Amino acid sequence: MKALITTVPFGDKNRLPLELLEAAGIEYLINPLNKKLTENELAEMVSDFDVIIAGTEPITDYVMESASKLKMISRVGIGLDSVDLLAAERRGIKVSYTPDAPAPAVAELTTGLLITLLRSVQLSNIQMHNGQWHRYFGRRISEVTVGLIGIGRIGSKVLKSLSLLGASRILVNDIVPNSKLDQNYIFERVDKETIYEEADVISLHVPLTKATKNMITKKQLEMMRSDAIVINTCRGGIVNELDLYDVMKTGHLSGVAIDVFEQEPYEGKLKEIERCLLTAHMGSMSIDCRTRMEIEATEEAVRFLKGNPLEGEVPEEEYAVQREGL
Amino acid sequence: MKALITTVPFGDKNRLPLELLEAAGIEYLINPLNKKLTENELAEMVSDFDVIIAGTEPITDYVMESASKLKMISRVGIGLDSVDLLAAERRGIKVSYTPDAPAPAVAELTTGLLITLLRSVQLSNIQMHNGQWHRYFGRRISEVTVGLIGIGRIGSKVLKSLSLLGASRILVNDIVPNSKLDQNYIFERVDKETIYEEADVISLHVPLTKATKNMITKKQLEMMRSDAIVINTCRGGIVNELDLYDVMKTGHLSGVAIDVFEQEPYEGKLKEIERCLLTAHMGSMSIDCRTRMEIEATEEAVRFLKGNPLEGEVPEEEYAVQREGL
Repeated sequence: MKALITTVPFGDKNRLPLELLEAAGIEYLINPLNKKLTENELAEMVSDFDVIIAGTEPITDYVMESASKLKMISRVGIGLDSVDLLAAERRGIKVSYTPDAPAPAVAELTTGLLITLLRSVQLSNIQMHNGQWHRYFGRRISEVTVGLIGIGRIGSKVLKSLSLLGASRILVNDIVPNSKLDQNYIFERVDKETIYEEADVISLHVPLTKATKNMITKKQLEMMRSDAIVINTCRGGIVNELDLYDVMKTGHLSGVAIDVFEQEPYEGKLKEIERCLLTAHMGSMSIDCRTRMEIEATEEAVRFLKGNPLEGEVPEEEYAVQREGL
Repeated sequence: MKALITTVPFGDKNRLPLELLEAAGIEYLINPLNKKLTENELAEMVSDFDVIIAGTEPITDYVMESASKLKMISRVGIGLDSVDLLAAERRGIKVSYTPDAPAPAVAELTTGLLITLLRSVQLSNIQMHNGQWHRYFGRRISEVTVGLIGIGRIGSKVLKSLSLLGASRILVNDIVPNSKLDQNYIFERVDKETIYEEADVISLHVPLTKATKNMITKKQLEMMRSDAIVINTCRGGIVNELDLYDVMKTGHLSGVAIDVFEQEPYEGKLKEIERCLLTAHMGSMSIDCRTRMEIEATEEAVRFLKGNPLEGEVPEEEYAVQREGL
């Protein structure tokens, strides 16, 4: 029994996931390229393995074609855009994930990025390091209208944190109505266009699907207030990066934080824009959440290889999303 | 009746403070140097004015000596380290301030800086803009021990925000015991040394007095954990900047955020250190708080010039601090 661990770093801050594999007598290889793999790199690497403990690299039908022994994919994380679930289903490959583990870390980073952008911290820091002194005016959370697109596991935690920090107006566009939230927090359900037009801060918390790919292009960006703030800690590809670059180059938008990119590692042009705060897909990278994700995904792989019942199988609605091209 | 407005920017986002002066028939001059004044610059500028609507520039006995008409100082903000209260008292110059207005903005910025440093956002942003991709591990608020030195108007708001965001251990060293806080939040009262030694994050919320000047030098910095985080949004001079530079150069401390400096505009060496997140005294610079501070200080100056009772006079204990050299 052999497991390929594609996501890196892995077992770095806490060796427990590796020890779990070792204790179960499972041979493993950690991605020797030490970066997010391309489809071809993964296809070349995967032929000999029964299980992939996976990051966000593309696990396509083509990859599975090269993986004749593959019986299970255990995603370290929540997003399934990188996995062709229908191809896996056809080939009888099980897919599990860890949907709850990343949420607290992503939500907290989002809150920090939001305050950072509201106060132009990223701009002042660059200027100070260049010997320039300029006192930026900012806004507090209570002064702005926040728009959240998506209030699932992560968006709902952002909603909670911002509410506790005094947000006075939160607009929400949700994919799946979440009735539990309604009772606990004050917000307005609106359509996406209302968020684009009215929100001072727009934060995205949706999965990457056909329906959300390029959800925000030049048209939507130009609908936003000239001093709007946009935060994307969910998935690259939801905000069109080239359009974002073009629009920010004109001076539109006061600040943007992007943690996720269409191609990672990111090498695109947004780095030219100082108003654009860039981080390296670090949303879930708190030691506790990352460790929990790695342990959960590894335990699931061990369960599978030992023939025990799975606990984190991807539910039917995720297959439906891909089946229906949503 | 003439007012000198030394703090800049002033009336920038909201003209109301200037309109209040105009409506009261008070002539005013806004600091023509458009920067924080030195003692000499202020002394040269002040001779003709009845009131100073003041920032943090030094209003010393020497300045007052040159200000033969000066009858009142109205501080836009809370700190009084810049005002020689005893010289003012001797000369019969009234001093008022706006102690409550800045607190929400300073506390919120502090919370944002804390999350930013816990997640190495400032480092990733620099690297991403240089085309480097490194996924930093971070910690969540709930994973760390937070140490707050000072829980007055601002520190108590930071305590509240971090508690709401899930902080699991907060150590507090307070100057004035605040019994109201005890009932609402869970924290441990400890001495400063315990905070230096045990806290993962140390945030300072004390006034600058003889007792707090150079409170944190090389000795205290070296007592801290090697991956500790230090945040100073209160006053420059409390953390010795040269010692901080020397200690960080050795690799000690994982991240530091400094918003306030001994000399402002800051031109020192901390800008060489990427782990050091620098901002330009922006703690109170949210539009709402800054406007409230400006309006309150202006209203107080108008009250004084019209002979109406003052509402923001500096209380006796602030004089006592300076009298007793605390």
